[in-house]
Amino acid sequence: MLKIALLGAGRIGQVHARSIAVHPDSHLAAVADVVADAARKLAAAYGAEARSVDDILADPAIDAVLIATSTDTHADLMERATIAGKAVLCEKPVDLSLERAQACQASVNRTGRTVMIGFNRRFDPNFAALKSALDAGEIGKAELLTITSFDPAPPPLSYIKVSGGLYRDMMIHDFDTACWLMGGAPTRIFATGASLVDPQIGAAGDVDTAVATLFWEDGRIAVIKNSRRAGYGYDQRIELLGSGGLLSAQNVLENTVERISEAGTHAAKPVYFFLERYQRAYEAEWSAFVDAVKAGSRAPVTLADGVLALACAEAAGHSANSGEAAAITPDLSSMFKISPWN
Amino acid sequence: MLKIALLGAGRIGQVHARSIAVHPDSHLAAVADVVADAARKLAAAYGAEARSVDDILADPAIDAVLIATSTDTHADLMERATIAGKAVLCEKPVDLSLERAQACQASVNRTGRTVMIGFNRRFDPNFAALKSALDAGEIGKAELLTITSFDPAPPPLSYIKVSGGLYRDMMIHDFDTACWLMGGAPTRIFATGASLVDPQIGAAGDVDTAVATLFWEDGRIAVIKNSRRAGYGYDQRIELLGSGGLLSAQNVLENTVERISEAGTHAAKPVYFFLERYQRAYEAEWSAFVDAVKAGSRAPVTLADGVLALACAEAAGHSANSGEAAAITPDLSSMFKISPWN
Amino acid sequence: MLKIALLGAGRIGQVHARSIAVHPDSHLAAVADVVADAARKLAAAYGAEARSVDDILADPAIDAVLIATSTDTHADLMERATIAGKAVLCEKPVDLSLERAQACQASVNRTGRTVMIGFNRRFDPNFAALKSALDAGEIGKAELLTITSFDPAPPPLSYIKVSGGLYRDMMIHDFDTACWLMGGAPTRIFATGASLVDPQIGAAGDVDTAVATLFWEDGRIAVIKNSRRAGYGYDQRIELLGSGGLLSAQNVLENTVERISEAGTHAAKPVYFFLERYQRAYEAEWSAFVDAVKAGSRAPVTLADGVLALACAEAAGHSANSGEAAAITPDLSSMFKISPWN
Amino acid sequence: MLKIALLGAGRIGQVHARSIAVHPDSHLAAVADVVADAARKLAAAYGAEARSVDDILADPAIDAVLIATSTDTHADLMERATIAGKAVLCEKPVDLSLERAQACQASVNRTGRTVMIGFNRRFDPNFAALKSALDAGEIGKAELLTITSFDPAPPPLSYIKVSGGLYRDMMIHDFDTACWLMGGAPTRIFATGASLVDPQIGAAGDVDTAVATLFWEDGRIAVIKNSRRAGYGYDQRIELLGSGGLLSAQNVLENTVERISEAGTHAAKPVYFFLERYQRAYEAEWSAFVDAVKAGSRAPVTLADGVLALACAEAAGHSANSGEAAAITPDLSSMFKISPWN
Repeated sequence: MLKIALLGAGRIGQVHARSIAVHPDSHLAAVADVVADAARKLAAAYGAEARSVDDILADPAIDAVLIATSTDTHADLMERATIAGKAVLCEKPVDLSLERAQACQASVNRTGRTVMIGFNRRFDPNFAALKSALDAGEIGKAELLTITSFDPAPPPLSYIKVSGGLYRDMMIHDFDTACWLMGGAPTRIFATGASLVDPQIGAAGDVDTAVATLFWEDGRIAVIKNSRRAGYGYDQRIELLGSGGLLSAQNVLENTVERISEAGTHAAKPVYFFLERYQRAYEAEWSAFVDAVKAGSRAPVTLADGVLALACAEAAGHSANSGEAAAITPDLSSMFKISPWN
Repeated sequence: MLKIALLGAGRIGQVHARSIAVHPDSHLAAVADVVADAARKLAAAYGAEARSVDDILADPAIDAVLIATSTDTHADLMERATIAGKAVLCEKPVDLSLERAQACQASVNRTGRTVMIGFNRRFDPNFAALKSALDAGEIGKAELLTITSFDPAPPPLSYIKVSGGLYRDMMIHDFDTACWLMGGAPTRIFATGASLVDPQIGAAGDVDTAVATLFWEDGRIAVIKNSRRAGYGYDQRIELLGSGGLLSAQNVLENTVERISEAGTHAAKPVYFFLERYQRAYEAEWSAFVDAVKAGSRAPVTLADGVLALACAEAAGHSANSGEAAAITPDLSSMFKISPWN
Repeated sequence: MLKIALLGAGRIGQVHARSIAVHPDSHLAAVADVVADAARKLAAAYGAEARSVDDILADPAIDAVLIATSTDTHADLMERATIAGKAVLCEKPVDLSLERAQACQASVNRTGRTVMIGFNRRFDPNFAALKSALDAGEIGKAELLTITSFDPAPPPLSYIKVSGGLYRDMMIHDFDTACWLMGGAPTRIFATGASLVDPQIGAAGDVDTAVATLFWEDGRIAVIKNSRRAGYGYDQRIELLGSGGLLSAQNVLENTVERISEAGTHAAKPVYFFLERYQRAYEAEWSAFVDAVKAGSRAPVTLADGVLALACAEAAGHSANSGEAAAITPDLSSMFKISPWN
Repeated sequence: MLKIALLGAGRIGQVHARSIAVHPDSHLAAVADVVADAARKLAAAYGAEARSVDDILADPAIDAVLIATSTDTHADLMERATIAGKAVLCEKPVDLSLERAQACQASVNRTGRTVMIGFNRRFDPNFAALKSALDAGEIGKAELLTITSFDPAPPPLSYIKVSGGLYRDMMIHDFDTACWLMGGAPTRIFATGASLVDPQIGAAGDVDTAVATLFWEDGRIAVIKNSRRAGYGYDQRIELLGSGGLLSAQNVLENTVERISEAGTHAAKPVYFFLERYQRAYEAEWSAFVDAVKAGSRAPVTLADGVLALACAEAAGHSANSGEAAAITPDLSSMFKISPWN
């Protein structure tokens, strides 16, 4: 039974608390949050203790920490926790700065601890089934990937302003999905976006609608489409053309009821809320982390994966700002450099 | 090139005229109708002659006749045409009386001519594909069949009154489909209906909503559901459970457009009109008839098939009237007797 | 917080134990089972006590009991528990004998306690959404209902032999669904079945494939189709034609992945196991029971509903045995009499 | 009744011949082809005359010509035919050179004749229904368009070599669709492609897999995805996110049959051949042309539309070659200039 400390008792922390608690091999022992009350309340609900981060990291009985704090603390906490000998599951993104993220990666690597980044979508049963089908050779070699990822409604403007922008905050999930499915880092990204949904998002220097095209050395292509507002729900689809056919993962609908009338056929819409869509994904993610920690093996989503997704986001931002494609080049130590392409 | 005479220039006659005209191996040479003007007009549209039935049957240049006249003339015309040496494609039903239909069958058999009954649904590409899949063993042995057959709206009351009733007029298609898919005659039928759509239909002694259950000797079962009014279109589906899976043929929709909004997912409804749904079926039916005539082979839908469907309709009527199941028993000469079961 | 005792620690008891435990307003306090070890083990997993039934019923601290024991004990336990002042959620069926079930109903009614029968399908989110749409008038007046209910594979023969037969054991769910959707008791049932799946089931005097047609006084019709073996999964669908359109609830598939290749389009199959399909239904069922007990209101599925479903099953059995329709007639005290129709 | 001359008796000419012949208001009077035999054979099949182009253009009895010759003759023939007073329906593309196409446009405009370019997809019932829904405001303002357009298999290499390349030959349809749905010319295009399907296509200097992103002045975005080889059929889909929802037009499948078995759910694949998918579109296209000629009104797809699609193709080619975005700038006389963006 792994003893787990949860750092961060906000919305996503609460989701993780439940996964930790219901898993037969993990026990939620401690909760920390900068808002003491939030930590106390969440801890109480699961029979855990509210403790400080220092206290938790110093406690040899704690096997692993789940970092669900604000993004600017991720890298520091990963470094401290791994130095303290803990396994870590850290929410995405690693950091808003690629440089900082890569420094963190170097530091963490030296500890040899199991560190996993919370790209929950890989654990969605639909996306996971698509990946399995691809790996089983069901469509031959992957050629052209399309990821559709629309939120039902934009987050508050206050969140947008500290989010690091759409590419780092929202599309980062899709960058990870693209690299996971296509295998390895793209060499070139062209991205562009606009503020079509809410002019205040544009005024804040961000976009709410964006398309990125990723290119791999061998000619394979991925297209990512993001919108902050689909209105009808959480629209999360993947479509992959291969040499032997097309794989797709469609949306999850609210129910299976259909009504046919003179007005046409009516069916349910996609589930609205990401927690409803991805509840099973969060549980499977936690389960995969527990398995990796128990086995002492590499996490199924590594810190290197988190750094790669961030490199893609940084390249996309460069491209969107310059209007031209950006190149992603790994150096000798596998660190990524972003530069204009051409 | 087969020279064809069309008997009957009404709505369904016009559909057939087009199929005859566009087929590369058949030529519409003559049209007859009790309404002389209708015959003239239809003949003119295809460069054919308006002629009397007597004249047509006496003309050795006419290879085949397509009978699309009123039901009460079908048996007589089939007998006369086959005696005159013509091949025949006759619209369903053979007759409203099982006795008369069986006498016609005996008479026609003596001529040895190719006679085909117009159960067009067998030639619908979807139903034909389902039959092919079944014959290919894709679901093993058939066990439980469901046929859904709803019209968009009831026909005029005047038609209802001379139609022979729902079982002989509407469900007869489904009886043929059931026997075609399950193979051979059922031994028992339980049917019941109600007038839920239009009380005037009930007042005219007919039903507008009905369910029949057919049983084969070896335990296999078919359920047929009919309604004179689906409202949303022409609802024509087949579903067949076999020992190795489930085959179904779904509706044909007006188009493939979907709209997802806060109100849900909206898609098109089934096509409304039977001519739109079954246009390709009518063309394929005609083509199959031409092939049989040219090859001198048995028609893909025989007069015996038409008699069997009528026997089912008669049994269903008996059952609905008595409230009890009716038995269908073939005698030594393959004629069917309908009697109470039990 | 309601204190709950669970009677029966078998497979379905374990499902309920989980629902009781995770509900914020109920606490699993005690477990009883004729197999003492089973009770102890399940109790331990939830921090409950293993106790005898006598002990539980005598304990005033127990607010409600959930009866998940073998069918032959249901009526006795409901009577004893309600006399002891407990609220009861009892698994279906009430009993295998309609007479005994009706006696139980009379006895329980005298206590005035909240008693709910576990027809879990009413709480399936898809079926519940269909019912809501019907109640909201989305298709006008219900006319023709079809329920498809196929198990993936037959239960062990030993279970079949004590099950009371397909109509009482399996189709009873569908009888309840039909009465729930159509409102009130049908007046006539015609049923028939065959042993197509496994001859041993036939040898044991039961059927494995069956169709029942239910008729209401006002002409409305319901068709129920059952098979003990669909092979591909748990096939649970409802389709309802109304005066203004068609409502349907389709199957729940394993995932949303599709693959298009030269071999056609491939998608997932329906979920295989009833616990996977109906997990959310069991949770919602329990929640509805807790709400009714807390409010002191009538349960959403009453003992009378359980008796009605059993009356339908008994009528279906009569019909299948006799080959003729059976009538369901309520007497002055709302007890049902089954007799030949006609 | 319009008298029509068909220039070009190849595959697409034969498709048009049929549409002309079956339309009640047009008559195929003459056929011309550089291969005299081909013209004679096609003319014979429809009771038309095989004549030379000169002869046809000089004949005042010919009301309109349909140009289905090789691309390099389109512009000349349009100019000559309009000067000769004929209405024209010309197959796409206008020309492989944007300069030549714009000169043709200027010349044709001076004649004032009705000229229509054969972008048949606008007349596909599914795409037309999507456009109607958009125009009816069903999803509010268009924001993000995705066009998927995959051929089942690449054309012969000999065709590829003279085709003008994927952007001018294949994607030009999608450029037209994008401009039709979004309204007006994009200001910027980023395109890239690869030879993933057949290295010989790459060796011939073309690509077989490509993605283009189009940007409009106001921030709206369109993504076009092309592959020369989907394998499973003709994959033609449109998806459009608007401020109020998502519209999509899905593929047309071979039939509506589904099979559910232990291996999953199997359905038909998209129709394979473009003539099968677009037969109704070709008929509707011709009908729209006849209507415009009879009314003396502007064609529903103008020569300006053809020029715009070609400008997009040229911009896409520039972008793919340079690796950078290309700008499309209209000059004072509405001629388009392609230049590097930035």
